[in-house]
Amino acid sequence: MSAALLPAKRERFLRACRGQDVDRPPFWFMRQAGRYLPEYRAVRERVDFLTLCKTPELAAEVAFQPLRRFGCDAAILFSDILVVPQAMGLTLTFGAGEGPRLTEPLRTRDDVSRLLRVDPGRDLAYMLAAVRQTRAGLSDGEALIGFAGAPFTLACYMVEGEGSTSFARLRTMMHADPAAYDELMTRLTDVVADCLQAQVEAGADAVQLFDTWAGLLDGPTWAARVAPHARAVLARLAACGAPRIYFAAGGPHLLPHLGGLGAEVIGCDWRTPLAEARRLLPPGTAVQGNLDPVLLLAPPAVAAARAGEILVEGDAAAGHVFNLGHGVLPGTPPAAVAAVADAVRGFRSRRAA
Amino acid sequence: MSAALLPAKRERFLRACRGQDVDRPPFWFMRQAGRYLPEYRAVRERVDFLTLCKTPELAAEVAFQPLRRFGCDAAILFSDILVVPQAMGLTLTFGAGEGPRLTEPLRTRDDVSRLLRVDPGRDLAYMLAAVRQTRAGLSDGEALIGFAGAPFTLACYMVEGEGSTSFARLRTMMHADPAAYDELMTRLTDVVADCLQAQVEAGADAVQLFDTWAGLLDGPTWAARVAPHARAVLARLAACGAPRIYFAAGGPHLLPHLGGLGAEVIGCDWRTPLAEARRLLPPGTAVQGNLDPVLLLAPPAVAAARAGEILVEGDAAAGHVFNLGHGVLPGTPPAAVAAVADAVRGFRSRRAA
Repeated sequence: MSAALLPAKRERFLRACRGQDVDRPPFWFMRQAGRYLPEYRAVRERVDFLTLCKTPELAAEVAFQPLRRFGCDAAILFSDILVVPQAMGLTLTFGAGEGPRLTEPLRTRDDVSRLLRVDPGRDLAYMLAAVRQTRAGLSDGEALIGFAGAPFTLACYMVEGEGSTSFARLRTMMHADPAAYDELMTRLTDVVADCLQAQVEAGADAVQLFDTWAGLLDGPTWAARVAPHARAVLARLAACGAPRIYFAAGGPHLLPHLGGLGAEVIGCDWRTPLAEARRLLPPGTAVQGNLDPVLLLAPPAVAAARAGEILVEGDAAAGHVFNLGHGVLPGTPPAAVAAVADAVRGFRSRRAA
Repeated sequence: MSAALLPAKRERFLRACRGQDVDRPPFWFMRQAGRYLPEYRAVRERVDFLTLCKTPELAAEVAFQPLRRFGCDAAILFSDILVVPQAMGLTLTFGAGEGPRLTEPLRTRDDVSRLLRVDPGRDLAYMLAAVRQTRAGLSDGEALIGFAGAPFTLACYMVEGEGSTSFARLRTMMHADPAAYDELMTRLTDVVADCLQAQVEAGADAVQLFDTWAGLLDGPTWAARVAPHARAVLARLAACGAPRIYFAAGGPHLLPHLGGLGAEVIGCDWRTPLAEARRLLPPGTAVQGNLDPVLLLAPPAVAAARAGEILVEGDAAAGHVFNLGHGVLPGTPPAAVAAVADAVRGFRSRRAA
């Protein structure tokens, strides 16, 4: 493709997700809309976090902010993975300065069986309206990513009730009450698949399944007890044609198992070298990542230099979506993000014609 | 060795650490002395945690408790990795129900340069007294393990001030103020080496370096910025002859780099298969681990069954110390630990004559 005929951002993003050559890798940043941006904080002065998630015009507004600043190729729906458990009947709160809390966590199979059935069009209407409103405000050439928490990661929170370093309660339930675990995972698989399908129908070009806590499990346990559910979610989306991204943080040891998921793109955290991921994934699988978000707190030149290395590493084969290896950290200076965005936009694939 | 001539526990432990054949793997459990034991809680009703650490007869008493219950081959010094930063001048508190807190964390190179020099014999006299008192109360045939936090993990807490999932402050300092980082790591290397050497002189048969947060780093960063300090600590101990155990939680991706540390034993967390560790470590390196501590919260038969698998995996070569893949979790029923201890004690190495 000639430099005079640069692809639109959406085309660049979708081509890279499908493992096709592009002029340069498309980029977006996990948690690119958030408190580190003054324009986001200005919105949050008027509304609390959940109100923001549930007000489509505001959710769309904050989703646009990083594209305006950094020229990202894709916006991501502004929402939270825990609105799905909320729709299933759990009580969700975000205390000031605290993480999220589900105040009536699930502890027994009875608790699980009392979860509500979710119809996204009815119970998550605000989320689908946010997808439509965000899509409507993007140019035709910009991509929109939908997302949901993966069943295991949602289950971690639903059983623990809050953040944890071990999520021992769900991991215990998996072994101590396998029927409760399996019922919870099966219900979540249905809801998450329905939710992502509805997001694609509402205008999302691709979807990311966030399995933030999958890395807590050893490989064989993940493969036996988690992968079938993640695979089922992704399989339900196969017919809609939108690329599917699976991201497990802390999961370099899961790589040998990830190829069987059916995802077009595997998100790599900063500890998973892109080359290693490509070596262990089926040919043609795209990789996404993987700048350590801590580097955005260092001088911008440090982050930009490491981004340069990742760009070269990613360019060894077709199919690289540039991103962080985890979400933007609180306190990140927007200038550091801009420096990295500049590095990506200035890169030219050596495979581009 | 004939069944009639079973080795004493200490001999079994030291032989396994050195990669020599034994009748069955020696075992101990990380955090084996702790709140999950009623006899520990009885001691803690009388004194707070730091007083317990600093009262040698009580520290020795709680170190004996798991040996009485489970017949572990080794006791471990009862202490806390954060008493070293406290000796260096930081203020350490343990709030009720909270994790530890260092109330004046280090943020600048000036903060680092104000750290006190530590003479273990003077500033950690209570710790060395606890080693001596524990050694004195063990039978000649039981092993005693000394320990310290590795420089990187201590630095994580000293800069962050409390627990964290990302320890972004130290990881930022590493890139944003490398001189401060290097000075902090160098000072810690000296203190930790002095401390472990003094523990061995006081009667510890082996030492474990806990690098709990090393797994937050990608492999090349760990190798360049952390490994030289960990290696220097271990090198200082080489002459004393006590086996050295290095344990990095969450570090399967660090395995290819761990062989160069010089440790006789590499601790494996539950996500690092023992066979994979042996494949990637220098021949003769012993491995320690690696039962997922979550399994101790499941029915004892589940934990014992998995322990059986690990025993067989470990027995594929000489040099296996049975342990958990991380510390005993709060709420663990002692009966589950006992079931695992029984499984280990009932195992016979297929290589035993």
